Amino acid sequence: MAKYILKISCNDQQGIIATVTNFIHNYQGNIVYIDQHVDSIENIFFMRLEFEFNADLHLVKHLKDDFSINIAHRFNMDWKINSPTKKPKMALFVSKYDHCLYDILGRYNSGELHVEIPFIISNHLNLKPIADSFNIDFYHISVTKENKSEAEDVQLKLLTKHNIDFIVLARYMQIVSAKLISKYQNNIINIHHSFLPAFAGAKPYHSAFKRGVKIIGATSHYVTEDLDEGPIIEQDITRVSHIHTISDLILKGRDLEKIVLSRAIKLHLERKTMVYNNKTIIFS
Amino acid sequence: MAKYILKISCNDQQGIIATVTNFIHNYQGNIVYIDQHVDSIENIFFMRLEFEFNADLHLVKHLKDDFSINIAHRFNMDWKINSPTKKPKMALFVSKYDHCLYDILGRYNSGELHVEIPFIISNHLNLKPIADSFNIDFYHISVTKENKSEAEDVQLKLLTKHNIDFIVLARYMQIVSAKLISKYQNNIINIHHSFLPAFAGAKPYHSAFKRGVKIIGATSHYVTEDLDEGPIIEQDITRVSHIHTISDLILKGRDLEKIVLSRAIKLHLERKTMVYNNKTIIFS
Amino acid sequence: MAKYILKISCNDQQGIIATVTNFIHNYQGNIVYIDQHVDSIENIFFMRLEFEFNADLHLVKHLKDDFSINIAHRFNMDWKINSPTKKPKMALFVSKYDHCLYDILGRYNSGELHVEIPFIISNHLNLKPIADSFNIDFYHISVTKENKSEAEDVQLKLLTKHNIDFIVLARYMQIVSAKLISKYQNNIINIHHSFLPAFAGAKPYHSAFKRGVKIIGATSHYVTEDLDEGPIIEQDITRVSHIHTISDLILKGRDLEKIVLSRAIKLHLERKTMVYNNKTIIFS
Amino acid sequence: MAKYILKISCNDQQGIIATVTNFIHNYQGNIVYIDQHVDSIENIFFMRLEFEFNADLHLVKHLKDDFSINIAHRFNMDWKINSPTKKPKMALFVSKYDHCLYDILGRYNSGELHVEIPFIISNHLNLKPIADSFNIDFYHISVTKENKSEAEDVQLKLLTKHNIDFIVLARYMQIVSAKLISKYQNNIINIHHSFLPAFAGAKPYHSAFKRGVKIIGATSHYVTEDLDEGPIIEQDITRVSHIHTISDLILKGRDLEKIVLSRAIKLHLERKTMVYNNKTIIFS
Repeated sequence: MAKYILKISCNDQQGIIATVTNFIHNYQGNIVYIDQHVDSIENIFFMRLEFEFNADLHLVKHLKDDFSINIAHRFNMDWKINSPTKKPKMALFVSKYDHCLYDILGRYNSGELHVEIPFIISNHLNLKPIADSFNIDFYHISVTKENKSEAEDVQLKLLTKHNIDFIVLARYMQIVSAKLISKYQNNIINIHHSFLPAFAGAKPYHSAFKRGVKIIGATSHYVTEDLDEGPIIEQDITRVSHIHTISDLILKGRDLEKIVLSRAIKLHLERKTMVYNNKTIIFS
Repeated sequence: MAKYILKISCNDQQGIIATVTNFIHNYQGNIVYIDQHVDSIENIFFMRLEFEFNADLHLVKHLKDDFSINIAHRFNMDWKINSPTKKPKMALFVSKYDHCLYDILGRYNSGELHVEIPFIISNHLNLKPIADSFNIDFYHISVTKENKSEAEDVQLKLLTKHNIDFIVLARYMQIVSAKLISKYQNNIINIHHSFLPAFAGAKPYHSAFKRGVKIIGATSHYVTEDLDEGPIIEQDITRVSHIHTISDLILKGRDLEKIVLSRAIKLHLERKTMVYNNKTIIFS
Repeated sequence: MAKYILKISCNDQQGIIATVTNFIHNYQGNIVYIDQHVDSIENIFFMRLEFEFNADLHLVKHLKDDFSINIAHRFNMDWKINSPTKKPKMALFVSKYDHCLYDILGRYNSGELHVEIPFIISNHLNLKPIADSFNIDFYHISVTKENKSEAEDVQLKLLTKHNIDFIVLARYMQIVSAKLISKYQNNIINIHHSFLPAFAGAKPYHSAFKRGVKIIGATSHYVTEDLDEGPIIEQDITRVSHIHTISDLILKGRDLEKIVLSRAIKLHLERKTMVYNNKTIIFS
Repeated sequence: MAKYILKISCNDQQGIIATVTNFIHNYQGNIVYIDQHVDSIENIFFMRLEFEFNADLHLVKHLKDDFSINIAHRFNMDWKINSPTKKPKMALFVSKYDHCLYDILGRYNSGELHVEIPFIISNHLNLKPIADSFNIDFYHISVTKENKSEAEDVQLKLLTKHNIDFIVLARYMQIVSAKLISKYQNNIINIHHSFLPAFAGAKPYHSAFKRGVKIIGATSHYVTEDLDEGPIIEQDITRVSHIHTISDLILKGRDLEKIVLSRAIKLHLERKTMVYNNKTIIFS
């Protein structure tokens, strides 16, 4: 039986859960898991519903149309039902650091990530051998202050050509412009090497060292036009002390970065994230 | 509007969520939060449902009867709806250690715990001054190998007289017998000073020191007749190293014990725990 | 045998450790533990040395004079040897929140803290009953914008009269002025309810909620004239999610605050902290 | 200037630190860092001392001989000075799981580990392509109940031929016999996928699931003849809940296993571990 995931958001109103679960039930859908959240300040309702549904494509289309007309319209919902058979397509943007890349490709190779990776883009050639060893296409697109706009056009062409669903900046070290962001809203995942909002911007480990913090962190977030200000998906931390040099912080941080980024990718792939008000809901 | 909490468990079947949410909806109940879980190996369904319900006691009784006859019976459910106005009554059993007691009473005093504490029982007099300073009755019931059964009879009489709902062993240091456990099944909360199942039994910090572990823990669990084998409610850990003596472990452990025990008490009070197969479901 | 603690800082030079350990050894002192640190960027050497020394006061004085003239002078050291018999005197400043106060006094009462607490100062009367129940003097010194300077004079008089060694702001909620800070440099410990440098200033839990962080923290630091910018002694964190309201963050934060503040107090009492460049060295 | 590491253990006696630091100082050695530990129950002294020493090999030999005759003999020390120029040689033993292998080889490739990896041994062929992609020799040595002794002879021959210093069992899934252990005492590092001593032996995630723990862990330890009973080098944990299936635990555990194992390898490489009484001292 195929598993579908329905995500909903709308103004909070009485009867949403009963109506939706009843709707699925009437189609013989078997509800496997519901998670929901109400932002009682903003009065918004959010729901993620997994259901098993044994039906041909025709009936699935019927269910969707019926839901659209009779439920979504009535409650004024934003909603989405994914197609369970389609593997999402992810593009990786990297620069010179390899730890996140190895971590992602290792998981990909062992089947841990339900995703396709059509290609890797980099502004440097350093990591091409790694892409090669995993048999993934590697495009070297050099980015300078002068050619940035043209470079992004080349990137966009590749993204479009391969029907990329979402982008992961695996320590890409470049600021992505509005051109890409607007096309991939809430679909560009970045890893920032600090415990945001502390130490946004460049060289966070240097700043953390200077401030003498006892804990460092890493933050994965969706990219918005405000640098390091996008909705946070996942964070984690590790303890440090006065004995650690900046290089030590960088080394320790790498382990955080790769784990936190991979967790964020998984949450995105499992459709457990919803974004609103520049924050995320992370369903369990 | 009063908030009710409905907890359900039964064999997993299609349509439970739709049926129950519809039932609440038809009574004009406003569902605030649902959490559910399916143990797909054992095929058991669990649900915790919070709903707001603006009704007189007569209508509440009607809802309960209706649910019992038309829903619970049909799905063969174990179920419970709490009364939102009643404050649960908690008895504290202590011995000589004061850190858990201070932590619980401090929270109680500042209104953090929605609970009544009619009395504290101890086999020693050491902590009586603390009970006094919080104006809570303190019963000194000495327990020896010889008088254990009689002592528990005295305890039971007190528990019954005050309509105690659940018991917290806040480092009580005595094994509670079947007599009490059977009367308070899944209603006696203990704190064990190790990361169970490691170091069950007496002197866990000594054993942890001897084994040279790099992390110690504390575990709060419901008490069953098998010592330190009951369903785990909450655990937490802290790092240690070779520089720590047994006394250091004991000191560090205290901070774990009090925090872990208080978290378990809160989860129990919020009716977020369900027990089956000697494990807990902890709803979010 | 009495245990002495020698703390040293000076420019890094060859032979310091050998010279100092030899010096202690020649006095029949038994070195129990050395910890040292070199800031290789600033070229500063730091050392904390515990030694057992069985001697009358006359010989201790001789050792100190000898060290001053023949060692400290030669290496141009800042240094200090504590007197092992003297219990440090700590003043507590509180406001309305009781969780840190309970935690500190609970530890104090059970002998966990090697300290005297001559009195508690507060700008409110709310926590007087707690002070009373622990038999500690409580001074209510109301602080307003207008009387701030006079209020601090009253505070200073009390601090001086009781020979207070250091001050703990246990959620005091008032900005302490230069008048106090200059008299108690690196001797005023504050607890800030965020993971500094994130969310400095007022209402950090509100800001954390707004930013949608997945982890909140607490930071204990020495107070300097720059608000929330002083040298960090200890930090810790806990995970949160979209389900937590601001009130939930505040509640969860309390457990962090009290544990982190108590750890900082202990490190200070054990003379394990050294401050330079607005950072701390925390010896193990 | 070359950096040497001196490790010492002996009965605790007065004057060790002064004597040793003086000795190094007299040779113009610059002491960079000392860490020491006294087990006051067993009365054993441990020290790790880093010093910079600018000398030809002749003088280094002289220093060692001098130390041996005049210091080590007098205090009856176990001691070792490493050669700073020699890169340790590490053999990797793997089976079918690739996550630890990828993690180690990724770090190796990016220069994070100061080590040589002459070869990888496996009882299966599955991971050969990974070894190939990193250009590391891969020996497939099938191990069965019947041929175990012969297989270990083949392994030993390879280890000896390549002058292997230490072995890492990166989820090797085979019990290593006394034959290897005795040759590589305190030089075989294993990763066990539980929080030892909980869930020693086979299928720890299954046992953790059954017991309903709220936290799972991983443990890296030196291998001894008692399975999963060797000296613990490093441990770490992650939170789990009732929603996690056994497969989820296995997946979550992988991230622990690889990070914990890599930390243990680094500590071993930096000569920060000392073993006694089946426990480790981990110097900072």
